Amino acid sequence: MSSKSPSRRLRRASLAGFAIVALTGLAAAPAAAQAAEETAFIFNTLLFLIGGFLVMFMAAGFSMLEAGLVRAKHAATICLKNIGLYSIAGLMFYLVGYNLMYSGVDATGLFGTPVPWGPSELASDETIDLSGGYASASDWFFQMVFVATAASIVSGAVAERVKLGPFFIFVAVLTAIIYPIQGSWEWGEGWLDAQFGFSDFAGSTLVHSTGGWAALAGIILLGSRSGRFVDGKPVVMHGSSLPLATLGVFILWFGWFGFNGASQLALGSAADAVAISQIFANTNMAAAGGVVTAYLLSMVINSGKPNLVVALNGALAGLVSITAEPLTPTIYEAILIGAAGAVIATYGAILLEKLRLDDVVGAIPVHLFAGIWGTLAAPLTNPDASFLGQAVGVVAIGLFVFATSFAVWFGLKAVLGIRLDPESEAVGGDLSELGHKAYPEFVPEPSATT
Amino acid sequence: MSSKSPSRRLRRASLAGFAIVALTGLAAAPAAAQAAEETAFIFNTLLFLIGGFLVMFMAAGFSMLEAGLVRAKHAATICLKNIGLYSIAGLMFYLVGYNLMYSGVDATGLFGTPVPWGPSELASDETIDLSGGYASASDWFFQMVFVATAASIVSGAVAERVKLGPFFIFVAVLTAIIYPIQGSWEWGEGWLDAQFGFSDFAGSTLVHSTGGWAALAGIILLGSRSGRFVDGKPVVMHGSSLPLATLGVFILWFGWFGFNGASQLALGSAADAVAISQIFANTNMAAAGGVVTAYLLSMVINSGKPNLVVALNGALAGLVSITAEPLTPTIYEAILIGAAGAVIATYGAILLEKLRLDDVVGAIPVHLFAGIWGTLAAPLTNPDASFLGQAVGVVAIGLFVFATSFAVWFGLKAVLGIRLDPESEAVGGDLSELGHKAYPEFVPEPSATT
Amino acid sequence: MSSKSPSRRLRRASLAGFAIVALTGLAAAPAAAQAAEETAFIFNTLLFLIGGFLVMFMAAGFSMLEAGLVRAKHAATICLKNIGLYSIAGLMFYLVGYNLMYSGVDATGLFGTPVPWGPSELASDETIDLSGGYASASDWFFQMVFVATAASIVSGAVAERVKLGPFFIFVAVLTAIIYPIQGSWEWGEGWLDAQFGFSDFAGSTLVHSTGGWAALAGIILLGSRSGRFVDGKPVVMHGSSLPLATLGVFILWFGWFGFNGASQLALGSAADAVAISQIFANTNMAAAGGVVTAYLLSMVINSGKPNLVVALNGALAGLVSITAEPLTPTIYEAILIGAAGAVIATYGAILLEKLRLDDVVGAIPVHLFAGIWGTLAAPLTNPDASFLGQAVGVVAIGLFVFATSFAVWFGLKAVLGIRLDPESEAVGGDLSELGHKAYPEFVPEPSATT
Repeated sequence: MSSKSPSRRLRRASLAGFAIVALTGLAAAPAAAQAAEETAFIFNTLLFLIGGFLVMFMAAGFSMLEAGLVRAKHAATICLKNIGLYSIAGLMFYLVGYNLMYSGVDATGLFGTPVPWGPSELASDETIDLSGGYASASDWFFQMVFVATAASIVSGAVAERVKLGPFFIFVAVLTAIIYPIQGSWEWGEGWLDAQFGFSDFAGSTLVHSTGGWAALAGIILLGSRSGRFVDGKPVVMHGSSLPLATLGVFILWFGWFGFNGASQLALGSAADAVAISQIFANTNMAAAGGVVTAYLLSMVINSGKPNLVVALNGALAGLVSITAEPLTPTIYEAILIGAAGAVIATYGAILLEKLRLDDVVGAIPVHLFAGIWGTLAAPLTNPDASFLGQAVGVVAIGLFVFATSFAVWFGLKAVLGIRLDPESEAVGGDLSELGHKAYPEFVPEPSATT
Repeated sequence: MSSKSPSRRLRRASLAGFAIVALTGLAAAPAAAQAAEETAFIFNTLLFLIGGFLVMFMAAGFSMLEAGLVRAKHAATICLKNIGLYSIAGLMFYLVGYNLMYSGVDATGLFGTPVPWGPSELASDETIDLSGGYASASDWFFQMVFVATAASIVSGAVAERVKLGPFFIFVAVLTAIIYPIQGSWEWGEGWLDAQFGFSDFAGSTLVHSTGGWAALAGIILLGSRSGRFVDGKPVVMHGSSLPLATLGVFILWFGWFGFNGASQLALGSAADAVAISQIFANTNMAAAGGVVTAYLLSMVINSGKPNLVVALNGALAGLVSITAEPLTPTIYEAILIGAAGAVIATYGAILLEKLRLDDVVGAIPVHLFAGIWGTLAAPLTNPDASFLGQAVGVVAIGLFVFATSFAVWFGLKAVLGIRLDPESEAVGGDLSELGHKAYPEFVPEPSATT
Repeated sequence: MSSKSPSRRLRRASLAGFAIVALTGLAAAPAAAQAAEETAFIFNTLLFLIGGFLVMFMAAGFSMLEAGLVRAKHAATICLKNIGLYSIAGLMFYLVGYNLMYSGVDATGLFGTPVPWGPSELASDETIDLSGGYASASDWFFQMVFVATAASIVSGAVAERVKLGPFFIFVAVLTAIIYPIQGSWEWGEGWLDAQFGFSDFAGSTLVHSTGGWAALAGIILLGSRSGRFVDGKPVVMHGSSLPLATLGVFILWFGWFGFNGASQLALGSAADAVAISQIFANTNMAAAGGVVTAYLLSMVINSGKPNLVVALNGALAGLVSITAEPLTPTIYEAILIGAAGAVIATYGAILLEKLRLDDVVGAIPVHLFAGIWGTLAAPLTNPDASFLGQAVGVVAIGLFVFATSFAVWFGLKAVLGIRLDPESEAVGGDLSELGHKAYPEFVPEPSATT
């Protein structure tokens, strides 16, 4: 389990090992041993598939969250960005990313072998190799939906002013190259894992902070939406549909059981089942702690009036915070970790405003700041993680992702431009980039002042 | 199975027992017997986890249903209530509720031991006790999402005029104390189960009627929305987004497969798999019968015009009706049980209007009235349930939940006030309580007449 | 697996066979053999249940897609149609359809025995027959949600002008008779399967094209919406909520993992787990290929401006295309199959417009045209399918479904009328048929010109 072997790969191997060890009593009955091994193989694969479809659905969650938090004149564009980025992420991870992250990685190198995944490993009934412990395509599917999640984080932050084409190019680079390289350092059993014992169970840093750093680089180079800061003071730009945003958060919460739970990477033993159950409970309670904390905090900040968006982001901050280590905390600790994440995300959003950085949906406070917190908090409950190792991972991945993302955004800005011209921004991405509106019957013709 | 042992706990135990009994043929091969026991342990745990995430997603269903059925000026508030109550329910059930319901309950006492759940029972690989039959955290997670469901029912009924803070306090008391105490009587193997053989497979009474009684006490003390009854006649206040309400019902229907199916509490044997399959089919068909019945009935009532909201509530009434006994009916019986539930809920809504009780979303007809019907209908198909036992359970739980809920609402009303002042109500909960709107670009400034 | 035995039933039988064969090494230990058989029984049943609830949720996806793509004045009506058709489909498939499709079908006859499914086969613990390989109710549930999908396809195409009552009658006939008869030819092991080796893994033809043909007959007889073609030129009628349409597509994509994955019909062996994993990956990547292709194509068609609805339908076209054979392609092939499907659906939509056929949501290009493509493409990767056999299946099912659907729509038109009168159409189905609006606070009073 995670506490024994921080690497996802090692965890996987040790658990497959466990199942086999458990069968040594069956040595006199090799057919029974094979049947038990096959049962574990099916359970492990099923976990990846269930986890995978749950995390896939998080793409719908991000879409609704972002569609609800942008203004109506940008809502169709953000939907197109979300379904597009999910698709591009899968294609890139197939073409390059998976093997860059997982194939031929070693403890000193910086990345693996960027070739397409596969060939398809569908075997005939007779030739299936049970010793791998799971179907390789199920693992590919599960890893693929994670890279899509990282990309989803970016779209919310840069919304309402980034150009569609350059955004998609950035997503392609992020999912083909940036995400897999940093991922190889840890989940690919690379240097962070081997040399520093860095631990990130389900991706507070590898997925959420990575998305957050990429988004931060983007919003710095993009600048804020016109009218967002007037005379140095922030102007609130309300989201167009808070019910959709709420739906998005619930979908994300729902999908997070797959995100964290299936990151146990095995269901082939009772110990796995126990671990995943604890992860489910902790994941839920960290989010619950985040909601209540953010709710109360929003009242403190807003003269007694609670704020729905702050509470929604509190849920997400709680979820991101527990993602680095959802297994070893007790429920009580999970609640506190989530609550602290919500505090960090809530004040982090205020900090960003003070820095005049415009993050439309609050993606950076939620995914980056709470992701750092969750990663650093892992040693509080997991004795096999160290603060030093965690700090090294946070800094190394942060520097790499921010620098490379900044370079890509910078190059795109120089070559293609990344920002809508002021008139297009005023009229909204929907009409200017797509030529059609998200809600053609509902909203008055957008003008520069809307 | 349910027909043999109405108690959830007993059902669980007997099924774990079954799996072990089935292995007695393996006595000569203890390693194989242990492997089979471990397989059953994983299946049982997996059922709780899948059922748990499905029921968790019902929180999104309730949110969308209620956001769609309130007027736009209250939509953000109802979203905040829903994500807040789900979070509070989990925290309270962790802190007090679970053990109050399940720990130290006996056949004559009135409740268990109100201490926090746990300590965390995550064991090492070597020390997992397979004899329990499932991971304890998976059971906790599954039970927790049920209490959240009960709380969700309340928010819809009292919408558009209850104050946020007192509502959350009520939710905390409901989920920490009221729900667990009545739950201990039956699912905790308490007096209703032991002395009266009361049977409630997945919670028509324990969950749905409980939520309904708590809601009824609330709306009596709150009074109706201003303008809801004029000169003694009801004025229809249309929901702001019926597509969202429809989405909510589909999500609830989807989640109900977990609600009823996983209430089999075990998947470790072929008999469990057969039972859960029947439950899935029955659950679906009761809802289908409810939809068609409510659709036709709405035409009869409305001079030939069908009504979408009535049909939606017909689905929910069918689902609630089959929840007390989803296993023993044939599909034909399940359709009839659901259809009858839809009739009861449809006319129940009219009855409430006649009594000038204002239930914004129809929660009481759907969850309370159809819940009573479903509970009383259990003996029609389950020979191990008796009408007397069912009636005792309905009355006992009804009296307890209504009385305690009334007392809590009454106390809150006296101390804090539970109702928005008329001006706040007119302007809408969103602006008056949160200071921001759900759809800032779409709806004209709300006025007292909207 | 599919490549060995194109029939669903045969596939199922061969896989159950595989599990048993694999156990022959256990002949000396019959108790262990029985335990392994029971484990396979549980896995197979669990696959049907998980696949079933995922496909059930596709009803929500169709509802949101269609509610988002109709104009606001028809949105409540389309929601009612969708929850109604899902319910009617289940009832009809129970009463007549399942046995018409699966019971007593032979290689020369045209259909099975139209009697209600069941009686309920819930057995006691002692009498469960493991040799069937799965719980029969789980199979029924899984097959039932497929027929509902076929019906869902129709509602989108005929939206905004079909009368509610006749629509539901059509759905009843489609799901009770038309779908099951053509389904019996293939999945019921009838003549198409036995004599022509037709292969349709998860229903590109049996489900999607069937829905598409039924829709095509409907829109021919209904005629286009008033104002849709002016002076022979198409007028774009924008959907009212593209975020809801996007949500619908994501839900459908999510559900498709159940649609295609669980059509493997067994999870009881490692070979099944490997196959389902490949199906998940291929299904996802065909959709991803469809999105990117349709996105680029929409830019070509629309002078550089991409179109969200075209991209959404590209996802669905990719999914439909891979559905006939999601198992044998490599990922690379799956991407190409999905991309080609998106091309076909995109130009198919333009073709329909040229023919002045009005398909409100693009259901026919997506489900019929891409469904034909996917079916004909199966032999490209599956050596056990032949172009001749596929063509025979496409033509035979097409002729049968189109002719019978045309006859039913024609009869309904003659007897009841199937189209709203012009005034009702102008005012919208919501007010004219239901008497209430989907968004009462948002949209100005609809007029004939809206």
